[in-house]
Amino acid sequence: MKLLRVGLAGREVPAVRTPDGRLLDLSAITPDIDGRFLADDGVSRVRAALAEGRLPELDGTGLRVGVPVARPGKVVCIGLNYRDHAAETGAPIPPRPVVFMKDPGTVVGPYDQVLIPRGSVKTDWEVELAVVIGRRARYLDSPADALACVAGYAISNDVSEREFQLEYSGQWDLGKSCETFNPLGPWLVTPDEVVDPQELRLTTKVNGVIRQHGATNDMIFEVAHLLWYLSQYLVLEPGDVVNTGTPAGVALGLPGRPYLRPGDIVELAIDGLGEQRQVFAAA
Amino acid sequence: MKLLRVGLAGREVPAVRTPDGRLLDLSAITPDIDGRFLADDGVSRVRAALAEGRLPELDGTGLRVGVPVARPGKVVCIGLNYRDHAAETGAPIPPRPVVFMKDPGTVVGPYDQVLIPRGSVKTDWEVELAVVIGRRARYLDSPADALACVAGYAISNDVSEREFQLEYSGQWDLGKSCETFNPLGPWLVTPDEVVDPQELRLTTKVNGVIRQHGATNDMIFEVAHLLWYLSQYLVLEPGDVVNTGTPAGVALGLPGRPYLRPGDIVELAIDGLGEQRQVFAAA
Repeated sequence: MKLLRVGLAGREVPAVRTPDGRLLDLSAITPDIDGRFLADDGVSRVRAALAEGRLPELDGTGLRVGVPVARPGKVVCIGLNYRDHAAETGAPIPPRPVVFMKDPGTVVGPYDQVLIPRGSVKTDWEVELAVVIGRRARYLDSPADALACVAGYAISNDVSEREFQLEYSGQWDLGKSCETFNPLGPWLVTPDEVVDPQELRLTTKVNGVIRQHGATNDMIFEVAHLLWYLSQYLVLEPGDVVNTGTPAGVALGLPGRPYLRPGDIVELAIDGLGEQRQVFAAA
Repeated sequence: MKLLRVGLAGREVPAVRTPDGRLLDLSAITPDIDGRFLADDGVSRVRAALAEGRLPELDGTGLRVGVPVARPGKVVCIGLNYRDHAAETGAPIPPRPVVFMKDPGTVVGPYDQVLIPRGSVKTDWEVELAVVIGRRARYLDSPADALACVAGYAISNDVSEREFQLEYSGQWDLGKSCETFNPLGPWLVTPDEVVDPQELRLTTKVNGVIRQHGATNDMIFEVAHLLWYLSQYLVLEPGDVVNTGTPAGVALGLPGRPYLRPGDIVELAIDGLGEQRQVFAAA
């Protein structure tokens, strides 16, 4: 199932996308797609309503697509989690997941404009598999228990300002938390539609040129391991987002370091999770 | 003015504390003390109602004191921001603020139990001046504009697990984001009651022994500078919390490194902002 939220920012309507691309309005089932909806097994209610054919159609023509899950409580990120990306940045393979956070206020819709911060000359892209939590994860016994906590998957662009991230202090969060720096969506795709989260191809194009073309089977720590690991140290709550790392091909790792400039267009795709497209603009 | 929230977690009632220690119920003014209340200048509405004497008294006997601001959107932390603390950890004086984040879900009441994570042998205390944002701060022109964005001040215990923070990767957030790791309160004290945020003494006692006894005039980057600086890179929203760093005297910097064990009692105080007291327990 593909859940989404459509409409102006802050006034989105919850919806489900049918296999033939129509949108059905979920307003009668839930006021929003958020942590509470996911924790209360809202997904099963949607599934039942779908089966009974009692959801009204929504005319999506011209409607903005919002973030598929409203107000994530936190955005946890994993750094250097693809072998090829660790190699391109010159970093050794980390012995444990590298965990940092992003301001959850950075999350925007998949087609929203992304702002290049004032003074920035090193704004970079990062296509990532985002995991949205559906069930509280705290001290999970083993990675085998982890995927049961997943509400779904989405594309994330973990936009990064490399000067702010890497040159201002040893801590990365500042360069990860700039306004609009986390396009998410277009959909929250439920796990039944993702046969194997470790067999997905991820692609980024910048101005039409393919820059990232990786696969989640290159992850150093798999999704199940990451969630289990995180749950030993912090509590993952329904609606939280985990960005699981990016493959090679970011500007930081490319010859000439082609960082983003106003007017640049970034398009991201992951198998089965749809596509994003952002126009970058000056803040 | 001292604003607070009293009652069971998740069901707190907003209140104001009078100079003689009584609590007045703010339920008629606002459903909660949160970012929206602060952004909508709820503080002025409370002030007017107080002046008119139309707030009913609330019997606080036996009531839990909650977090003074509900659901912070983010908790931004500044590392190594006191000269004496940088010295005790062996770190050089940072040329720019060291910025990291804490899971905002870690915020708990000032007297709530704090959990020592499973497997932890290096859980540490950090008394900090917390700044709660009242007005959006984005690209502020200068530090002189910053204090106008402050809704108030509170005590924060930026509880830290040093092994998770410092030994597992170069990124600190994991050891800062464990469950219950950010007691906040007891009150949100409005700026008119804080004559100078750079002239406050901060104290931590552990099991009755004074461990931290610092002063905000030892900060490397003052509050106004920090908010101005942060606003150049990220957007501070009403209800967000900024932990401004801790003075010397944490376990990490003490002889024998006396990290916290279940049953330990930590008491924190800052001039004019009240006191906190936490019993630490095994998770």
